[in-house]
Amino acid sequence: MSLESNVKTARDSFITLQTLSVKDRDEALNIIVEELLSKKDTILKANAEDMDSAKKQNEAGKLSSSMLKRLDLSTSGKYESMVQGVSDVKNLEDPLGRVTYGCRLDDNLDLYRVSCPVGVLLVIFEARPEVIINITALAIKSGNAVVLKGGTESTKSFAAMSQVVRSALSKTKVPQGAVQLVQNREEVAQLLQFDRYIDLVIPRGSDKLVRYIKENTKIPVLGHADGLCSMYLHDDADKDLAINVVFDAKTDYPAGCNAVETLLVHENALSTQLPFIAEKLSQASVVLKCDSRSYEVLEKTPSVAKLLQHSTENDYDTEFLDYTLAVKTVSSLEEAMAHINTHGSKHTDCILTSSESTANKFMSGIDASGVYWNASTRFADGFRYGFGTEVGISTNKIHARGPMGLEGLTIYKYQLRGRGHVASAYGVGPSKIPFKHEPLDVYHISEVNKLEN
Amino acid sequence: MSLESNVKTARDSFITLQTLSVKDRDEALNIIVEELLSKKDTILKANAEDMDSAKKQNEAGKLSSSMLKRLDLSTSGKYESMVQGVSDVKNLEDPLGRVTYGCRLDDNLDLYRVSCPVGVLLVIFEARPEVIINITALAIKSGNAVVLKGGTESTKSFAAMSQVVRSALSKTKVPQGAVQLVQNREEVAQLLQFDRYIDLVIPRGSDKLVRYIKENTKIPVLGHADGLCSMYLHDDADKDLAINVVFDAKTDYPAGCNAVETLLVHENALSTQLPFIAEKLSQASVVLKCDSRSYEVLEKTPSVAKLLQHSTENDYDTEFLDYTLAVKTVSSLEEAMAHINTHGSKHTDCILTSSESTANKFMSGIDASGVYWNASTRFADGFRYGFGTEVGISTNKIHARGPMGLEGLTIYKYQLRGRGHVASAYGVGPSKIPFKHEPLDVYHISEVNKLEN
Repeated sequence: MSLESNVKTARDSFITLQTLSVKDRDEALNIIVEELLSKKDTILKANAEDMDSAKKQNEAGKLSSSMLKRLDLSTSGKYESMVQGVSDVKNLEDPLGRVTYGCRLDDNLDLYRVSCPVGVLLVIFEARPEVIINITALAIKSGNAVVLKGGTESTKSFAAMSQVVRSALSKTKVPQGAVQLVQNREEVAQLLQFDRYIDLVIPRGSDKLVRYIKENTKIPVLGHADGLCSMYLHDDADKDLAINVVFDAKTDYPAGCNAVETLLVHENALSTQLPFIAEKLSQASVVLKCDSRSYEVLEKTPSVAKLLQHSTENDYDTEFLDYTLAVKTVSSLEEAMAHINTHGSKHTDCILTSSESTANKFMSGIDASGVYWNASTRFADGFRYGFGTEVGISTNKIHARGPMGLEGLTIYKYQLRGRGHVASAYGVGPSKIPFKHEPLDVYHISEVNKLEN
Repeated sequence: MSLESNVKTARDSFITLQTLSVKDRDEALNIIVEELLSKKDTILKANAEDMDSAKKQNEAGKLSSSMLKRLDLSTSGKYESMVQGVSDVKNLEDPLGRVTYGCRLDDNLDLYRVSCPVGVLLVIFEARPEVIINITALAIKSGNAVVLKGGTESTKSFAAMSQVVRSALSKTKVPQGAVQLVQNREEVAQLLQFDRYIDLVIPRGSDKLVRYIKENTKIPVLGHADGLCSMYLHDDADKDLAINVVFDAKTDYPAGCNAVETLLVHENALSTQLPFIAEKLSQASVVLKCDSRSYEVLEKTPSVAKLLQHSTENDYDTEFLDYTLAVKTVSSLEEAMAHINTHGSKHTDCILTSSESTANKFMSGIDASGVYWNASTRFADGFRYGFGTEVGISTNKIHARGPMGLEGLTIYKYQLRGRGHVASAYGVGPSKIPFKHEPLDVYHISEVNKLEN
């Protein structure tokens, strides 16, 4: 089958998938869970073969150890938690059919804005084979078809899982073609040209991958290349609170996109608060890249001095993803906000202050998907936000922003239900009918069908 | 001022504009109304000069008569209705600060998803000078900065209006730089490269303009190039209803993107219904481009025969924007849906049927922004939908779809309000705190501030 016919099949399958009830979609997820449990040995065997090749690549210095770790499905509990993930998605509320706007235009002429799937998703990912199952579950639950494109390192795991998913779907109402798995590395460039069939690209991998995709397609891309999160320490912040929050945001998981990378310090807090924060960070050996004013203050603190470096301008545009923090002195809230709006990546930024009005100024004036007051930037995550699942985190400024749950995979359509109404009869003027425009209070479109039956 | 500094000024102005209260934004609109009323003569004089040049261009065959008509601001009531439009936008509900998701993660750790402006809009339009005022009002009301790029034919009207807007804004809290007007035609290509500063492009003009823009920028584009709307006449449709609805959809305003272009007819309705519909359409001299089966039936109807033509495959992919309708026979609902999903432009499609279950199948299986049952496609319009205004109509499948009101110019940010909460304390396990994830029922973020004060 050619790549184009793969993608076209996904599109055709979407047309059917979008009409299925949530019962049918959930049933498909149940059967996938059963098949995954019964075919565990086959999948782990295929994964072990991928691991053998990857280990050789790693020894030859061609594949990183972290990539190796991500590829491994045999770690304790990893397979089970992948399967559990499918059940968790199944148990989420149906994201489709929700009415987000209802308006009676006139008697028997009712308009409903109803949530529906986006269409065909292209998900491009690296190494982690469990993404296949994770994304398949999210796509089916939200009524989207999906074309999955994995990296070469997981070829065999990929083939085995793909076999299991296809076999499971053949027993359900979800068309088998709704999940397309394509393998060759060189196909990415070609896939990105299929804007006729594909509605949305979701990259799950390195910054490099995301940037490549954004630069090489006309299809909308949801995701983020950078996560340059900042914290601003105002001069009235509670000291102990600031120590704990900065420490968590930097050290809980420095490789995360929601870890803090830049700390802006009000000049009045330089000697009263910063040394205590730095001392706490030194317990995790965090390197501090300081501007001259903060350096001057901190070099007097013995436990910190050896971790100090002079910052360069470039440090304030760098996502370290490591135990490193850039520190800069500012003389006002406004200066801090201007710095973040210029150097940040619109991901998640936080202010530490005891004043609600100062916090409100910050939260309205920072242009980012997350604006936090006295809480760690590490909370920027779909599970923590209560979405039950996470499709990804977007730093885009349209459609979905920040952590995306299933809702990020939906759009809406307007249903208009009339009884032969014509537009020329309405408007302003003597012989024209005025619109009623009365709100209709409906939560789910299925209620409408019941009402009218 | 260089083009880049224009755009950068818009970005800087947005940073301030996003923090203004709705009172400040409305006040700016009031002052624009006052200035427009007091400077009416100046603007109409400038417009008259543009009209003089345009008439010469028109006589030389270089500018269409419809373009000439759109350029003219002196037609009775046109200026007043432009000014009234600003007041209408002012009177709409504030689209900013609405809470669309509220969740208590834990005690004193509250998450709110709050609507906010997108950022900097680039609006590119042709001829119609009133678009400047219309878009300025929409942008200010929704807290967005805007870069406006008009066509050369309206240069003088443009300069005069720009002067009035700038003079008005200088008396308000809205930064003057929030509305940038740029003039030279050749600058479009350059503007489309400024993805660092511009968040969204909205083209208002010909299909050709929209296509050029979509193909030449990485910035998201909201709009539509095509409006190929279809109607499907099922065999159980009410005959009189079908006659009226098809007639309205085709003849109310054939140049509109929501006019019907293709009529699909169930074979059982060919002789029972189609001739009556065709007869009615012949009153407006609508040319029918028919497949062989429908042609055969209709050539027996004398009043219609002279308006018949044999269709080509290409006719089913054509937006006629004229008194022309493509007609095709299908043998089932499924065939009709497959045709529309392949040939349509995902704008607005309608089914004519007496059966609710047939209508529901159509409305769930058609992938379009509007899916109608027994109502004219001409209802696809922001004012008719009850939005109070229309930014444009989008056939995109993410962010905004269909007629867009002010909501289409907003996105959201997540506000997290804590008291020093750290992420490492939460999760599953013996020493970890579980999340509460309790819904917070808040309509507008200003309620939160009041609650906590």
